[in-house]
Amino acid sequence: MDARAAYAELLRRYAEVRDLSSAAALLSWDQETMLPRKGAAARGQQLATLAGVRHERFTDPRVGELLAECRADFDSFDELQKAQLRELTTDFDRATKLPKELVEQFAAAESAALEGWRDARAKSDWPAFAPHLSRLLELLRRKCEVLGFGARRYDGLLDDYEKGATEASLVTLFADLRSRLAPLVGEVLERADRADASCVKGAFEIAKQEQLADVVVRAMGFDLDAGRIDRSSHPFCSGIAEGDTRLTRRFVEDDLRPALYGVIHEAGHGLYEQGIGVELARTPLGEACSLGIHESQSRLWENIVGRSLPFWRAFAPTAARLFPSLCGVAPEQLWRAANRVERSLIRVEADELTYNLHVAVRFEIERALVRGDLAVADVPAAWNGQMKELLGMVPGNDAEGCLQDIHWSMGALGYFPTYTLGNLYSAQLWEAAQRELPGLDASIERGELLPLREWLRAKVHAHGRRYPAAELIERATGAPPSAEPFLRYLRTKLTAVYSLD
Amino acid sequence: MDARAAYAELLRRYAEVRDLSSAAALLSWDQETMLPRKGAAARGQQLATLAGVRHERFTDPRVGELLAECRADFDSFDELQKAQLRELTTDFDRATKLPKELVEQFAAAESAALEGWRDARAKSDWPAFAPHLSRLLELLRRKCEVLGFGARRYDGLLDDYEKGATEASLVTLFADLRSRLAPLVGEVLERADRADASCVKGAFEIAKQEQLADVVVRAMGFDLDAGRIDRSSHPFCSGIAEGDTRLTRRFVEDDLRPALYGVIHEAGHGLYEQGIGVELARTPLGEACSLGIHESQSRLWENIVGRSLPFWRAFAPTAARLFPSLCGVAPEQLWRAANRVERSLIRVEADELTYNLHVAVRFEIERALVRGDLAVADVPAAWNGQMKELLGMVPGNDAEGCLQDIHWSMGALGYFPTYTLGNLYSAQLWEAAQRELPGLDASIERGELLPLREWLRAKVHAHGRRYPAAELIERATGAPPSAEPFLRYLRTKLTAVYSLD
Repeated sequence: MDARAAYAELLRRYAEVRDLSSAAALLSWDQETMLPRKGAAARGQQLATLAGVRHERFTDPRVGELLAECRADFDSFDELQKAQLRELTTDFDRATKLPKELVEQFAAAESAALEGWRDARAKSDWPAFAPHLSRLLELLRRKCEVLGFGARRYDGLLDDYEKGATEASLVTLFADLRSRLAPLVGEVLERADRADASCVKGAFEIAKQEQLADVVVRAMGFDLDAGRIDRSSHPFCSGIAEGDTRLTRRFVEDDLRPALYGVIHEAGHGLYEQGIGVELARTPLGEACSLGIHESQSRLWENIVGRSLPFWRAFAPTAARLFPSLCGVAPEQLWRAANRVERSLIRVEADELTYNLHVAVRFEIERALVRGDLAVADVPAAWNGQMKELLGMVPGNDAEGCLQDIHWSMGALGYFPTYTLGNLYSAQLWEAAQRELPGLDASIERGELLPLREWLRAKVHAHGRRYPAAELIERATGAPPSAEPFLRYLRTKLTAVYSLD
Repeated sequence: MDARAAYAELLRRYAEVRDLSSAAALLSWDQETMLPRKGAAARGQQLATLAGVRHERFTDPRVGELLAECRADFDSFDELQKAQLRELTTDFDRATKLPKELVEQFAAAESAALEGWRDARAKSDWPAFAPHLSRLLELLRRKCEVLGFGARRYDGLLDDYEKGATEASLVTLFADLRSRLAPLVGEVLERADRADASCVKGAFEIAKQEQLADVVVRAMGFDLDAGRIDRSSHPFCSGIAEGDTRLTRRFVEDDLRPALYGVIHEAGHGLYEQGIGVELARTPLGEACSLGIHESQSRLWENIVGRSLPFWRAFAPTAARLFPSLCGVAPEQLWRAANRVERSLIRVEADELTYNLHVAVRFEIERALVRGDLAVADVPAAWNGQMKELLGMVPGNDAEGCLQDIHWSMGALGYFPTYTLGNLYSAQLWEAAQRELPGLDASIERGELLPLREWLRAKVHAHGRRYPAAELIERATGAPPSAEPFLRYLRTKLTAVYSLD
């Protein structure tokens, strides 16, 4: 078999593997939105079987042989094909290196930890969760040994979520963010009365909130012939397959913001999924570049667009039509309410300024755990110390402290930093879009969001994971990833919202 | 490996195969209820991949080896295990005997025929569909050669839907039904004014129809914690997995009957799926016995229960509460309306009396086609002749004649007779239930439908496909399958509705 035939056979096999992933994605979506209660156990078995079959087919030794045949004549491939082979090789190597026994131990430990976490959080009982985290850390260390890692073990964990990111670069980044964001919190909170949120609190009928969200999501250009929106207890976006991207949302009756910004956030993810080049469908490159890049899309739409004054100038009339209490409320008032900064204990409720400080707390603790410099038993004290230092408040118990997030119970250490990277990328992309699309603010003010979607599609979405995250950002913006655009953006906005200077 | 270990390994493998079937079932359900338009192509690929993977795993030569090891020590297994091995062997033999090439030719021919049928029906153009049917017949003949068949080739087709049924026995059966039902049609239609349906025609708000249907489905004991009800353009029931049985329905605004009886019909199927013994879940026996038995459950609830006078005595008050136009309408009026007999061209709209005559038309044509006694080009003439003879009317065009059903375009010859078998089984089961449950009519009149569900569960549902259809009926009713209970039931009911004697 020549290299060309081997390549074709590889992609044919990969397409089937992706079909199995799509099937599993649909089963998971259904589990969160549709599944009858008593079907849960059987669904777990179906998902386990699909995962096993997928793994078995993907790691078939024949795949390795075909990859070797392609490598033997690598220079004969064009750049796109080389990128396909590069991603496929990486995925194949990682999948085959992990012994089945370790994968199964991990699945069992995760399953136990997830249950343990739910109980421990309900009782605010860190010692009950600690053994689960210890076990997961032990398995994560073994996983890093097997797969190899860069300078530090934490780099190996980052590989699962943000290939190319390193602990060292994140240490520098978070030090910078800590020193420049933490002081700003105090500065803003002294002027808390300047961003009053009372206009977005009260009774907002859910059917009408749904209408408002639909208007915005349609304006963003989310294609409802290639997707849908349902309800679930935790909002998410699932890119199931080409032409099938699904968002979920939830509503809070006494605050206009959570549902609206939740669905804009998920639709930002959804536009990414819908924008991946159709020629990449069912190929190794046909998925998102990294979690950080994915998050950059949701945060750009949610925060930079959705919490902007032009946005509220465009959509305040719609909101007023739906909710009589908003008649006569100026777009500026809604905009200030949407940008109100508050000290809070809970990451998912945090505003743009404090959000990255919440992430900084988690990053500091994770890397200390992985280095072995922090004992699992000492996490609560470390958490509370970090919170005091960065946010000026200490949780009353561990349920609203170090037990609040699900991530560690899933063994997902190295995940949190991608949230902050997403915030940084989003501001850098936004600066570039403003440069390249004259009158962008004015078009948003007219409710025209498609020019921005088209720009993001061409610069980010269409490429799938053809380029590593840093290269994608540099190609899109002309500069390597940097925190400066985000810091400029945030300073400018808070200065305007809170009349700081 | 000893026989016991081989058996355990077989069941472990089978459970995974069933998980893949469940996944495919969910994907298909989603396709009919939820899937965005642009996701259709990708869904087709996912389903094809799942079918391929399922087939590959099920026909793994190792399964054949394990079956041989079990057969070598067959007497050491108990009756339930023997039944498991019997069904597994049959399925395995059929799956492995069919060459992959024939399976693929079939899939391609079906896919083309389905599209060809939709076009041909839209234009009422039989000659446009004829080549597709010829091709499918050719492939069906080859399939019969490969798989083997009983006395006649048509028996081989029946094997896919109603194992144990034979053309010869159906010929006798339909001759009997033709000679005894056809004269009844004229007798009843002379008294058409005695079953006036005007009370169930008019404007019935869909939200309220939904409420009425929900009340009935809950009364039947369909467990909504182990299932759900959605809308689709064609109603169906999908038993996806243990604890997950889904019904769909559609509504017609100007007639109360289609939605109500549609959902009772599907809930009848759904109770069967929910009632299969939990100990059989994910095993070869953990599915319905046959299509005929499945249909017996839907028809029993739809026709024998749902179109009975006790049923309307129970639910007329609910209907009147929801629809003011039904206030003052006596249960007897609703019961007569539900049982109105009408000559019609379309099988799916037919009443209980004429329904089996519609099936008889199809059976006669199918078996002539398979024998080679009827040319595909001559189907319209044969159809119209049969319709004239049995129903006294001739379709104005083939769209409402021989092109009306989807079945032949899917290569499903041998399927139609199971509808009639279902009607016969349902009446025989009903007679037995009446014998064994004293006061059954009175309990239905009180809206208490659970005693009947429990009886059906114990006698039919719980066994899955442990027994062949005829044996199941004999165990449940004390007698082998017979048409007499159905003929008695129908005669009695029509005599009452139309005051025949």
